[in-house]
Amino acid sequence: MDFNLNEDQQAFADVAAQFARQALAPYAAQWDKDHTFPVDTLRQAGELGFCGLYTPEEDGGLGLSRLDASIIFEQLAMGCTATTAMLTIHNMATWMLASYGQASVKETWLPDLVSGNKLASYCLTEPGAGSDAASLTTKAERQGDQYVLSGSKVFISGAGSTDLLIVMARTANNGAKGISAFAVPADAAGISYGKPEEKMGWNAQPTRMITFDSVSIPASHLLGEEGQGFTFAMKGLDGGRINIATCSIGTAQQALNTARDYMHERQQFGKPLAAFQALQFKLADMATELVAARQLVRLAAFKLDEQDPQATAYCAMAKRFATDVGFTVCNEALQIHGGYGYIKEYPLERHVRDVRVHQILEGTNEIMRLIISRSVLQEGSELV
Amino acid sequence: MDFNLNEDQQAFADVAAQFARQALAPYAAQWDKDHTFPVDTLRQAGELGFCGLYTPEEDGGLGLSRLDASIIFEQLAMGCTATTAMLTIHNMATWMLASYGQASVKETWLPDLVSGNKLASYCLTEPGAGSDAASLTTKAERQGDQYVLSGSKVFISGAGSTDLLIVMARTANNGAKGISAFAVPADAAGISYGKPEEKMGWNAQPTRMITFDSVSIPASHLLGEEGQGFTFAMKGLDGGRINIATCSIGTAQQALNTARDYMHERQQFGKPLAAFQALQFKLADMATELVAARQLVRLAAFKLDEQDPQATAYCAMAKRFATDVGFTVCNEALQIHGGYGYIKEYPLERHVRDVRVHQILEGTNEIMRLIISRSVLQEGSELV
Amino acid sequence: MDFNLNEDQQAFADVAAQFARQALAPYAAQWDKDHTFPVDTLRQAGELGFCGLYTPEEDGGLGLSRLDASIIFEQLAMGCTATTAMLTIHNMATWMLASYGQASVKETWLPDLVSGNKLASYCLTEPGAGSDAASLTTKAERQGDQYVLSGSKVFISGAGSTDLLIVMARTANNGAKGISAFAVPADAAGISYGKPEEKMGWNAQPTRMITFDSVSIPASHLLGEEGQGFTFAMKGLDGGRINIATCSIGTAQQALNTARDYMHERQQFGKPLAAFQALQFKLADMATELVAARQLVRLAAFKLDEQDPQATAYCAMAKRFATDVGFTVCNEALQIHGGYGYIKEYPLERHVRDVRVHQILEGTNEIMRLIISRSVLQEGSELV
Amino acid sequence: MDFNLNEDQQAFADVAAQFARQALAPYAAQWDKDHTFPVDTLRQAGELGFCGLYTPEEDGGLGLSRLDASIIFEQLAMGCTATTAMLTIHNMATWMLASYGQASVKETWLPDLVSGNKLASYCLTEPGAGSDAASLTTKAERQGDQYVLSGSKVFISGAGSTDLLIVMARTANNGAKGISAFAVPADAAGISYGKPEEKMGWNAQPTRMITFDSVSIPASHLLGEEGQGFTFAMKGLDGGRINIATCSIGTAQQALNTARDYMHERQQFGKPLAAFQALQFKLADMATELVAARQLVRLAAFKLDEQDPQATAYCAMAKRFATDVGFTVCNEALQIHGGYGYIKEYPLERHVRDVRVHQILEGTNEIMRLIISRSVLQEGSELV
Repeated sequence: MDFNLNEDQQAFADVAAQFARQALAPYAAQWDKDHTFPVDTLRQAGELGFCGLYTPEEDGGLGLSRLDASIIFEQLAMGCTATTAMLTIHNMATWMLASYGQASVKETWLPDLVSGNKLASYCLTEPGAGSDAASLTTKAERQGDQYVLSGSKVFISGAGSTDLLIVMARTANNGAKGISAFAVPADAAGISYGKPEEKMGWNAQPTRMITFDSVSIPASHLLGEEGQGFTFAMKGLDGGRINIATCSIGTAQQALNTARDYMHERQQFGKPLAAFQALQFKLADMATELVAARQLVRLAAFKLDEQDPQATAYCAMAKRFATDVGFTVCNEALQIHGGYGYIKEYPLERHVRDVRVHQILEGTNEIMRLIISRSVLQEGSELV
Repeated sequence: MDFNLNEDQQAFADVAAQFARQALAPYAAQWDKDHTFPVDTLRQAGELGFCGLYTPEEDGGLGLSRLDASIIFEQLAMGCTATTAMLTIHNMATWMLASYGQASVKETWLPDLVSGNKLASYCLTEPGAGSDAASLTTKAERQGDQYVLSGSKVFISGAGSTDLLIVMARTANNGAKGISAFAVPADAAGISYGKPEEKMGWNAQPTRMITFDSVSIPASHLLGEEGQGFTFAMKGLDGGRINIATCSIGTAQQALNTARDYMHERQQFGKPLAAFQALQFKLADMATELVAARQLVRLAAFKLDEQDPQATAYCAMAKRFATDVGFTVCNEALQIHGGYGYIKEYPLERHVRDVRVHQILEGTNEIMRLIISRSVLQEGSELV
Repeated sequence: MDFNLNEDQQAFADVAAQFARQALAPYAAQWDKDHTFPVDTLRQAGELGFCGLYTPEEDGGLGLSRLDASIIFEQLAMGCTATTAMLTIHNMATWMLASYGQASVKETWLPDLVSGNKLASYCLTEPGAGSDAASLTTKAERQGDQYVLSGSKVFISGAGSTDLLIVMARTANNGAKGISAFAVPADAAGISYGKPEEKMGWNAQPTRMITFDSVSIPASHLLGEEGQGFTFAMKGLDGGRINIATCSIGTAQQALNTARDYMHERQQFGKPLAAFQALQFKLADMATELVAARQLVRLAAFKLDEQDPQATAYCAMAKRFATDVGFTVCNEALQIHGGYGYIKEYPLERHVRDVRVHQILEGTNEIMRLIISRSVLQEGSELV
Repeated sequence: MDFNLNEDQQAFADVAAQFARQALAPYAAQWDKDHTFPVDTLRQAGELGFCGLYTPEEDGGLGLSRLDASIIFEQLAMGCTATTAMLTIHNMATWMLASYGQASVKETWLPDLVSGNKLASYCLTEPGAGSDAASLTTKAERQGDQYVLSGSKVFISGAGSTDLLIVMARTANNGAKGISAFAVPADAAGISYGKPEEKMGWNAQPTRMITFDSVSIPASHLLGEEGQGFTFAMKGLDGGRINIATCSIGTAQQALNTARDYMHERQQFGKPLAAFQALQFKLADMATELVAARQLVRLAAFKLDEQDPQATAYCAMAKRFATDVGFTVCNEALQIHGGYGYIKEYPLERHVRDVRVHQILEGTNEIMRLIISRSVLQEGSELV
């Protein structure tokens, strides 16, 4: 057992931290206010390799492990939660194309995706199929050497501003086994985008509904084989859950640091907040839960990298625990700031709004509990 | 003991509920989005008597008890949290003028305040004196038959759009005992208003800093006597805490009802959410905590009405418990809605943003704990 | 609305408090240690009327309301949790006989039960039918003018030391509707008692399994009519839940008082524990939750007295909330005592052990949530 | 980073698990009931090396790291919490002697301590100095080549049944810097033992007060130098906190496994408990928190092994979090068992009673929060 970062991990973390401080943190509040999608900044991140972190090296990525990626994303999230979350989605979509796409499609798209010149969205959720992803109804019909897609997807991060869509669609009517995955150019004829959803947070990325109205794409844009889509989606979700958990950790660490500094500065009743025992205890609990959550996320990432048979359960644990802790820590940091925590001049209320959605997406934390309990109740399983 | 509303209370509640449904609820989302301060709607509320609920009848108010007022405010808060909260502040300021103002000032202002033709703000908090109200530094110097006020107040609800300010200012340098209360016309020379604070919620009321630069007011505008201000403020806070706790209860009940309805409608995995046991349990806990919180608020209001020597402790308990429960219930209701809870098309995320500040203002919930513990630790006190 | 005790309630509370201080508190630790069932003390309680609190006056009881009884039981529980809990069970069984028994049986038994000369147990739970009471299998067959009972009951409070058993048994095979209630003399031929269960707490009352092996009783000992038993049981449970919730409230208040006193006495780092802010906050939260829980219990008792159609849901809410709060408060009071909280020289660890079972019996708190959610989800229901 | 056990760790864990299953688990309930101190079993543990796990190899120990020891203790705690806890205390006392004792004393005592032939107790806490250890008043006066000890120690695990006492006593009146550590034969003249404390749990080890009445020991029995005692104690506590946290983890894992098995077996309403979603969710949360807690304990042990400057804060975090989670998991496992969880036929209530003290000793969890907050608030510190 070894809990230290290795040299490479430390080096990557340092680069990411610097990028977060310089290219993200100074602008995050403005992006939130103006609902800016900072495409140029994402491209800059791509120059550092952050758009293809765990895309294989032969496909132009950095070929890092999920654990490495988590260490990097955590630092980035300290600068801007919403932007980093978008980056993790782009990484997942890019990895999925690299892992399961056909050579010709990969050649066309991967260089630009890995460099951040182009961005990808991931399209799984539908209006009637939220937690119950296997019930999705978007159809993809084979017609000659084309697939024709029809249906709707909702809550698509980046939609309308990205270049490629990884879309889960139904090629057969046998539940999860009838789902296939496709790489769909975002400007294909027949695709229309809804207006941006007005959200509580995550304002630095647009979220839109996408409607597919008989959208034709070449058959070569199928990922893997027909019927494998749900399997890919589930694999994608394992990593996606680590990523989103990581975004909570990074944001919460930033909120904790901000609260700690404020406790030194702010005076009440003739002494700094840092001198009040009840606030000290609150801070101690925030720090403790956060350290525990970070370890759990890293453990899950490690299990995923090791292809542990229980990796899905660990990822679900990490997602549930870290996003709950993340929300609580940000919310307590807001409270420590009193009235100043409630106004936008300070970053706390934004942190709370941004991390709130992490408890919902990539599978709600209720779905996480279902997944975890299934493992715990399973004969012979052991989660340690 | 009797836990039933009497006929008058029920009648008032019904009127308030109807007003909330017709005049508040349909507009609340838009007011939040546009940061509209619905002055006309407040005036309409005034026509129903809601601008002087516990102002004495001889002063034109309804002369209701705090308990009655809580029952009414709860119904209003189901329609719009932020507007109702502003209304409670106006009621407090109006009551303070009625209780401690000199006849001439009352005659000038009360008819319009009670009818809602004019609105009042309450100015206690200062940049350096949040929880530690007694350390405030705004000065009021007696000069002939005038008082001249200088200093700053922050987080003033309604500021810039109200007509009268009840201001706590220092007339002597002996801590809490050197504080006096004044009725200050909002357009007096020397008053300047900051830009509206951008807040997480409570967007249907403007919040601004107010700067007093040698603002002269007639000496008759002193409330009570010099040095009584802090006592008035503390009395005002007892009621203010019940009011803000009530706003949390009403909003949380609205959120709970919305979540219950959604659980019947929304299908996942082939059955309505209402059929999932874990969500049933969540709903049960939300309802239970909310019923307990409502009772605690009503108990505290009753104690305040009875001038119970421990009323301050009860009000602090009610404020702490009800605002915490209110936040949790709204936040869980959001979670039950999944992704739809996070977007502004649904009211849940607004409820969360609106009630969040209740845990902070009128004394943070940390200050509430200090107040409560002082009572519990006191020899011979008994809180039941 | 009125939250004050009336004069009678206050007078009863005072008597009960005195009894608790003099006849219960000084012996509770010893009873716990020796597993003593203080029959004489229960008889003394009977002399004060505490064995037939809500038995109608025409049957020799005090004819009090459930709310009155709760006020009394709360005071008693401050002296000894386990003894008071036994008393509440005896009261419930006595009330059930008075309400549904035939005149001859009532004449024979009620005078002694009401006076505390004889004691009653309540027999519902079976080894295979815990939360799922309707699935009970103990049989009662009509044979001429006799019923013959066969089967087993578990976790019966007082069993082996009481005189009358109120037994739920199956007279027909149609689920809940086939259950009937019987008054069974505890020494009837064919009844055998298991060895006392060794329990975590509640040691001042014996708990045993009871086996009925073709136990014949006169047909007149049927309560009400055949098939009404489950209805009686459910009515009994409503009151039983208020009682057990009340026992948690009284014990927790006692624990809180003990902790408060200890905080004044115990010095650490040169000052009393009462001077440490984090402990002050803990105490404040304990007191707040306890006051809220007490109100909820009283509200539920009031609803039961008023035969509110939602009374069952309110009783479930009260039971769930008050027993959870009761456990938490006792457990925190233990923590405040540090090492001294863990040893039997102090009452804290006993309080924790005693109230722990309240979260389980009379329907586990999980069953409570089911009951509550059913009400909340029901069309048109409103729990306020 | 590597989260896998290495081969040695796995082998040790397997041996410990087997010992727990064969030599501890079958007897733990009886030891609890009879208050048996299983000296022979501890000796058997010594034969496996478990009495000197991190005593250096040159002193006859296994020379393992704290992380290794934690992995072993966790397995043992699954068999018997109280016995394992005693073993950890013996290990700490033995390590302290090995680390700071003079050669002659080490030669006399270590072989027997390491083999488990003799046992050691650790004497720090005093009646008036619980959390505030530095205020201890037991005196040790140098008289020629002797030290003469006078004073009292309380809550001493194993006292009266152990052979050597590691005693903290005051050699000078300058606070923490005046404290020295001594190895005192348990049968030295002038030592008297109080009666065994009656405790909530931890009944498989005696706890007594010890009074030192002018107890003379050779000056060579001083550990290190005069004034170093508090430093040793603090170092001992770092490891002690990991140990006690580990005992909570092991017990909680055992309770979780028991609850999981019970959920498969127990039928209610026609299906196993495992089929009820609310219980599934409860189990999922128990497992998640437990995995997080285990990781935090291992992280802290690793930091201690690495002599990380923040090791004390990590140990405090691990102790606070793991003992809280341990209690909650055991308590929930009890709840899942319903009435059966409350009786001694099942192990759940014992688990709850045993782990409860872990939140108190080796520094209460309140003291842990003080330690943690000090680190978090410190300039430049970073806890990750």
